[in-house]
Amino acid sequence: MRTPLTELQKRVADFQVSLQNKGVEGALLVQRADTLYFSGTAQNVHVYIPDKGKPIVLAYRDFERAQRESSWQVIPLKGISKIPKDIQEAGLPLPRVMGLELDVLPVNNFERYRKSFPEITLVDISGEIRLQRSMKSDWEIARLEESAQIMSLVMEFAKEVLQPGMTEVELEGLLAGKARALGHDGLVRMRGFNSELYVGTITAGAGSTAHSSFDAPITGSGISVAHPNGASLHEIQIGEPIVVDMVTVVDGYQIDQTRILSLKPLSQELRMAYETARQVEERIRSALIPERIAGEVYEEILTWVSENTPYGENFMGFGTSRVSFIGHGVGLELDELPTISKGSKIVLKKGMVVAIEPKFVFPGIGAVGIEDTVVIEAELGARYLSTTPRELIEV
Amino acid sequence: MRTPLTELQKRVADFQVSLQNKGVEGALLVQRADTLYFSGTAQNVHVYIPDKGKPIVLAYRDFERAQRESSWQVIPLKGISKIPKDIQEAGLPLPRVMGLELDVLPVNNFERYRKSFPEITLVDISGEIRLQRSMKSDWEIARLEESAQIMSLVMEFAKEVLQPGMTEVELEGLLAGKARALGHDGLVRMRGFNSELYVGTITAGAGSTAHSSFDAPITGSGISVAHPNGASLHEIQIGEPIVVDMVTVVDGYQIDQTRILSLKPLSQELRMAYETARQVEERIRSALIPERIAGEVYEEILTWVSENTPYGENFMGFGTSRVSFIGHGVGLELDELPTISKGSKIVLKKGMVVAIEPKFVFPGIGAVGIEDTVVIEAELGARYLSTTPRELIEV
Repeated sequence: MRTPLTELQKRVADFQVSLQNKGVEGALLVQRADTLYFSGTAQNVHVYIPDKGKPIVLAYRDFERAQRESSWQVIPLKGISKIPKDIQEAGLPLPRVMGLELDVLPVNNFERYRKSFPEITLVDISGEIRLQRSMKSDWEIARLEESAQIMSLVMEFAKEVLQPGMTEVELEGLLAGKARALGHDGLVRMRGFNSELYVGTITAGAGSTAHSSFDAPITGSGISVAHPNGASLHEIQIGEPIVVDMVTVVDGYQIDQTRILSLKPLSQELRMAYETARQVEERIRSALIPERIAGEVYEEILTWVSENTPYGENFMGFGTSRVSFIGHGVGLELDELPTISKGSKIVLKKGMVVAIEPKFVFPGIGAVGIEDTVVIEAELGARYLSTTPRELIEV
Repeated sequence: MRTPLTELQKRVADFQVSLQNKGVEGALLVQRADTLYFSGTAQNVHVYIPDKGKPIVLAYRDFERAQRESSWQVIPLKGISKIPKDIQEAGLPLPRVMGLELDVLPVNNFERYRKSFPEITLVDISGEIRLQRSMKSDWEIARLEESAQIMSLVMEFAKEVLQPGMTEVELEGLLAGKARALGHDGLVRMRGFNSELYVGTITAGAGSTAHSSFDAPITGSGISVAHPNGASLHEIQIGEPIVVDMVTVVDGYQIDQTRILSLKPLSQELRMAYETARQVEERIRSALIPERIAGEVYEEILTWVSENTPYGENFMGFGTSRVSFIGHGVGLELDELPTISKGSKIVLKKGMVVAIEPKFVFPGIGAVGIEDTVVIEAELGARYLSTTPRELIEV
């Protein structure tokens, strides 16, 4: 699916307002999710966006495909040192102050741009990009809705294939394969340095309470020391809570969702904890309204859980594995703004898309919880994009 | 599997020689593959390696797991600004010149280290790390051999499950799931900025000749503009060449391999091209001997193909999709040194592990070729680590 020209025009126009407000006369963007967002192609390109006028796309692999996929003027990238000349030949002035994505650009790459633009002041423009990208357009929401459809079909399929004795990785393989067959992009992009995710977290029973490097309340223990997150070789048992935390991606747009499955009903204690997680999710959803401060929503929910449920110590991890967020932005990347986290000062806005994930971890037993992707719309609270029924899935 | 202490000691000792030769008194390493290599844990850690004496591991998530997995002293990372104090409290002097991984470290992260070490000259140490990591120990080779076993079992499984009409993504899902069930780590790490790979490239027929952003001779077209590489929804037909280019990972160590499958025999033309690829692979393998220059091997092979086969224009891509390498280092990352590429001046050494991949692309028809992971050992040429039979796989 080609990104419509009107969509790209709106993205560039909004960004140009940010550039003008910051006194930045142009931005040279190179990171894959950002270049896809502004150009419509995920080929290897640089995108130069002046503070007014049309952007240019400099492509180096694959040029013809970039030309087919982007609605902007696409010219061949002849080398980093030639970019100033390319900008001028496109009829644009050289900026005196130019923005780069300094949150992701490696130092050695940055030095090459600095050499090519010796007279130009280079500043970080990543905050403006991340904030803009956090607010989704109707076209982007439509992509997310398609992605949610795939997720729901995958969960229907999970009910059909789940068997006692199946390993976590076997279940993961079946669900990932099904998602791909339905049109899931596969790749889950993350922006953070060292952030890495394979398919998601498919984990069951006591092993799902393992601590690990991945910044999430439930991470699984993985197969090896080298990749210490996600599904393991554990054989799924009757009565265990089975966590299926997956991401489906359509045209780059991610739905992040968690459901709990079980073979035969869970214990009364775990069922109660799950119902509490659903209540907490509803509270989070209702609290996500325009102009609220993310960090205040976080504190409010944390307080409510510790005062009104018996699970204060089990919320969002246990002991040293607890994380300090209850939701995170999703879109082209899994770690977008806003984070609904301790101390976050970000102001919620219409169109922000958030994966909310209240989860409880019981060491030695297992973990339960729920996660849905929602979009902030109006004062009545966010709207669910995830379409999968929110009940426990007992097979 | 815990990395043996003797293995970690050797790695650190070799690196300390590089530090001393370069006049760098210590290195602070933060990138996942590097910290795993030097510490034995893939938790979130920083590793400080002085030019003499023992390293310290500063862990922030998960601390206890890092302590269990690494054989070095593990202390909690309290903050970037506290690291100089942590170094001194471990009984180590502060370095005057300190190495960082400037090929991967984002600018904003770098600025935080610069603020914490204001009096210290910070230099790039990534070249030394990448060169050292390119030469594998016996312990690392043993991990690769385990990974090759899994790959061979996956290819046996492919013969059982391949059916006409199956989509590329369905085949991908089955093979990836099988690999995981056999102990494959899942995650395929790459070092390069913007480098991303899902499972590999499962692609058949004319679609396998699509051009794309991924720097490989055969990339597939993917499912969407947003992820334009790898398997597509194309239904595999009788008589098409089916490219299965996959990576299996054991304890972080990657085997990269390609085989060609078909339902019923391929055309005589494609069979001949495949046999030529096998001959070229043997030539590359024989040429990979200690002290040779990688770029000279590349030129020699390119010349041989254009003078002795009818496929000069089809070798390693076609038209603008041609790549300028015939092999690349693999290990903890898919894009390690050495690259057997145009102009590469790297001197081949014993223990270097290379994925060699002679491939031919025929626009509108399909692609054939072979890829195996080999280790450079002696003057007779490299030794195959891949154990899968190298014949065409006709089902």
